[in-house]
Amino acid sequence: MMNASIRVSSPLTAVVGLLLTVALLAVSPNADAAEPLLVEKKSFTTRNFATVSGEVIPEVTVGWEAYGELNAAKDNVILITHFFSGNSHAAGKYTPEDPLPGYWDAIIGPGKAIDTNKYYVVSSDTLANAFPGLPHVITTGPASLNPATGKPYGLDFPVVTIRDFVNVQHALLESLGVTSLHAVIGASMGSLQAIEWAAAYPDMVERMVSVIGTGAMDAWTITALEHWARPIKADPNWNQGDYYEGEKPLVGLTSTLAMITQQAMHPLSMNMRAPQQPVLPEAGLASVTNSLPALDFLFNAAAGQAPLADANHILYLVRANQLFVAGHEQDLATGLAKIKAKTLFLPAKNDLLLQPYMAQQSVKLLQAQGKDPQYAEIEGIWGHLDGIYSISSKADLLAEFINSPTATSN
Amino acid sequence: MMNASIRVSSPLTAVVGLLLTVALLAVSPNADAAEPLLVEKKSFTTRNFATVSGEVIPEVTVGWEAYGELNAAKDNVILITHFFSGNSHAAGKYTPEDPLPGYWDAIIGPGKAIDTNKYYVVSSDTLANAFPGLPHVITTGPASLNPATGKPYGLDFPVVTIRDFVNVQHALLESLGVTSLHAVIGASMGSLQAIEWAAAYPDMVERMVSVIGTGAMDAWTITALEHWARPIKADPNWNQGDYYEGEKPLVGLTSTLAMITQQAMHPLSMNMRAPQQPVLPEAGLASVTNSLPALDFLFNAAAGQAPLADANHILYLVRANQLFVAGHEQDLATGLAKIKAKTLFLPAKNDLLLQPYMAQQSVKLLQAQGKDPQYAEIEGIWGHLDGIYSISSKADLLAEFINSPTATSN
Repeated sequence: MMNASIRVSSPLTAVVGLLLTVALLAVSPNADAAEPLLVEKKSFTTRNFATVSGEVIPEVTVGWEAYGELNAAKDNVILITHFFSGNSHAAGKYTPEDPLPGYWDAIIGPGKAIDTNKYYVVSSDTLANAFPGLPHVITTGPASLNPATGKPYGLDFPVVTIRDFVNVQHALLESLGVTSLHAVIGASMGSLQAIEWAAAYPDMVERMVSVIGTGAMDAWTITALEHWARPIKADPNWNQGDYYEGEKPLVGLTSTLAMITQQAMHPLSMNMRAPQQPVLPEAGLASVTNSLPALDFLFNAAAGQAPLADANHILYLVRANQLFVAGHEQDLATGLAKIKAKTLFLPAKNDLLLQPYMAQQSVKLLQAQGKDPQYAEIEGIWGHLDGIYSISSKADLLAEFINSPTATSN
Repeated sequence: MMNASIRVSSPLTAVVGLLLTVALLAVSPNADAAEPLLVEKKSFTTRNFATVSGEVIPEVTVGWEAYGELNAAKDNVILITHFFSGNSHAAGKYTPEDPLPGYWDAIIGPGKAIDTNKYYVVSSDTLANAFPGLPHVITTGPASLNPATGKPYGLDFPVVTIRDFVNVQHALLESLGVTSLHAVIGASMGSLQAIEWAAAYPDMVERMVSVIGTGAMDAWTITALEHWARPIKADPNWNQGDYYEGEKPLVGLTSTLAMITQQAMHPLSMNMRAPQQPVLPEAGLASVTNSLPALDFLFNAAAGQAPLADANHILYLVRANQLFVAGHEQDLATGLAKIKAKTLFLPAKNDLLLQPYMAQQSVKLLQAQGKDPQYAEIEGIWGHLDGIYSISSKADLLAEFINSPTATSN
C-alpha cells in the first residue's frame, strides 16, 4: 500500500468531466483513510419567486446538500455554487457504493481546505440545471410543469439570470436562518454566482473565491456561448422549445455537449486521451459522412449524456451567462465597487474558455478601487477543467484564505 | 498626406477576414505610391486526375494567378498555397477599382518581402474551395457537374486530401514547364499544403514557409474541425449533400462560418470590434430566442457570406484537413524526414486555432533529425488571423529566408 501522504491521481480514468459532472479526484488508497463523507440530497421550495426579468414563478424547487454542521450562531456557512453542467454534488458520496464523490471532494471535507469540521458547507442546484435527467438533480426550469397549463413551461419559462440563481440560494439560506456567509466559492458559472453574491449582498458575504471565472461577460464569450445554443435551435426536434411530448433534439444537444466539453479541455489533455489516428483511415477516406477514430471518444460520450440533459435548460443557462455582469450594474467596475468581501481569484493558466485575462480584469479594477484581491493561477493540462481537476494544487492557498480574518470578522 | 515611410493599418475597417478572404493591409496612402499590381485570374484544367483515395476525377479545373515574371531557366518560382476559406488571390488587384488587394499583398509585390521583381509568384485555388460562389473562384468539387450524370457530384465526389491539392498544383506547374520551386509558402491550410509539398516532392522544393500551420493534425484539431462540419450535416436542407436543386443549408452554413471566424480570432480583437452590451438588454431578457447586440456583428456577417459558400465543399475541406499528416506517412517524424527544403515556421503567438505548440512540434522533430528549421512567432491581437493581418511584422525575416542560399542552390 502507498504511504498515506502520497495521493495519486489518474487522468486516464477520468470521464469527460463537465458532462458527467464528476471530477478526477486525488484519492487516498491507504487502508486507514477516512470513511467517505456521506451526504443527503435535500429539496427546497420557495413560492412566488420574482425574477429579474419581472415575472413571477409560482413555485421554485431546487436540490441542495450540506457537509459539516451549522453552528449555534449560524455564522460558519460556506456556500458552493456550481458550474454550467454541474449540480449541487460538490463533495462526499450519496452512498458508499458511488463510484466517485462530488466534484470538489479534493478540497471539501473533514480536515480538507474547506474543512467540514469547522464549516457548514451548503451547495445547491441552480434554476434550469443542464441535466435534469440525472437522478439526484432537482431543479426548476423550462422542463418543469407550468401550474397554469399542467404541461412543461418550454419557452414560457421566464429568462433567468445569475442574480436569480443567487436569489434562490438566498431564500434557501434564509429558510435555514443563515444571514451571513463566511465564504462563497464557485467555479466557472459558479464563479459568476459567487461574484454576484458578493456584489448583490455585500453585507452578507465575508469572503469570495472565483475559480476559473469572470466578473462580466465580454463579446468573445457571449459569442462563444451562442455557438453552444445554435445546434439546439437548429435541430428540427427542438420545435421552438416544445418537444416534451415528441422527439427530443438529441442531435443538436450532442453537438452542444461535445462543444462544451472540448472548450473546457485543452489540447494537452485531449491529445493524451484520444486514440492516435491511423494514416488515412479507410472509412474516413471513403466518405465525409463517416466518422474518424479520433472523434468517437468525444461525440459518443456526448451522445450518451444528451438524453439526461434538457435542451431548453441549456439555452436558458447560455442566456443567463450571456447576460452576466457583476451586480447587473452598467459596467464591471460599478458592480465590483459594491463588493465588501475579501476576494480570491483562481483562473486556470491553460483555460481556453474563460481565459485568465478575465479574472485579471476584475483584479485590476478591484485594486484600482483600493481593495486587495488575491490572485493565483491553477496549473494543469486540463484547461478550464483545471478549476475542477487540479484544484487540490491550490488547497493550501484556499485554506489560508478561508481561515484568514476579515476587517470585520474572523 | 502622410510621409511615405508611415504605413497605417486600421483594424476597425477590416471585415471578418476568413469569410471575405480579404486581409487588413498596411496601405501606403502617399501620392507617389506604386501603382497597384494588376493581376489576371486564369484557369487550369487537368484530366483524369487520380486522387489519393483511389478514384479518378475526369476533369479538374482550378483558378490561378501569378505575380512577376517567370525567368528563362524557370527556376524563380514561389508557390503560395491558400487557407481554408481563402482562394488564389494573394496579392494585387483584379481591377484598379477593387476595394482591397489580395490577402498577403503586404508581403507580395515589387520590392516587397516576396519580391515580384525577382520571383514569379504562383497562387492557385484548391479543390473544393469553400466559396465557389465568389466571382473569381474557380474550383472543382462536390458542387461541380459530374460528367457521368450532368448534375452536381454532391457526395459522389471523392474525398480529397491535402496531397490532392498539392498534386493539382504540381500539374499546373508542370503545364508551365516548372520543375523546381524556389519556395512554397502558405498560411493555415496553406501551411499544410506547403509542408506536404516539401514532404511529397522533396527534390522540387528548396524552401518551405509554414505560417500559422501544423505538420499534422492532432485529436484536438480533428475534433475542433468536426464542430465545423456538424451544423451543416444537421441542417435538414443539407439532405446528405443533395441540395443543389432545392434550398441550401444556409442555417448550418451560417453557424459554421461564424464558428470558423471566431476561432480564427482572439478575444482581444473581437472585444475591440463588437459593440459593448448594455446591461440586461430588453430583448435578450425577454426571450432566449432573441439575439443580443454583441452577437449581430459576427452572425450577420456569416449569414451574408453563407450564400457564397458551398456546404459540401466545406465538409470536404474539413475532411482534407482532418486527414493530414505530412507526407501521408505513418507519423509526423517520418513525413518530416522526407523534407530536404530549408524550413521556416511562423506560428502566431495568440493563435487559438492552430496554437504554436503545433509548429514547435515540427521544429523539434526536424531538429532531432539534424536539420535547422527556423522559428519565430507572429505577435498581434488577431489570434490565428495574425498569420494574415500581422504578417508584415515578419516581412524582413521572410525576405531574408527567401533570399538565403540553400545547400544545393542559391
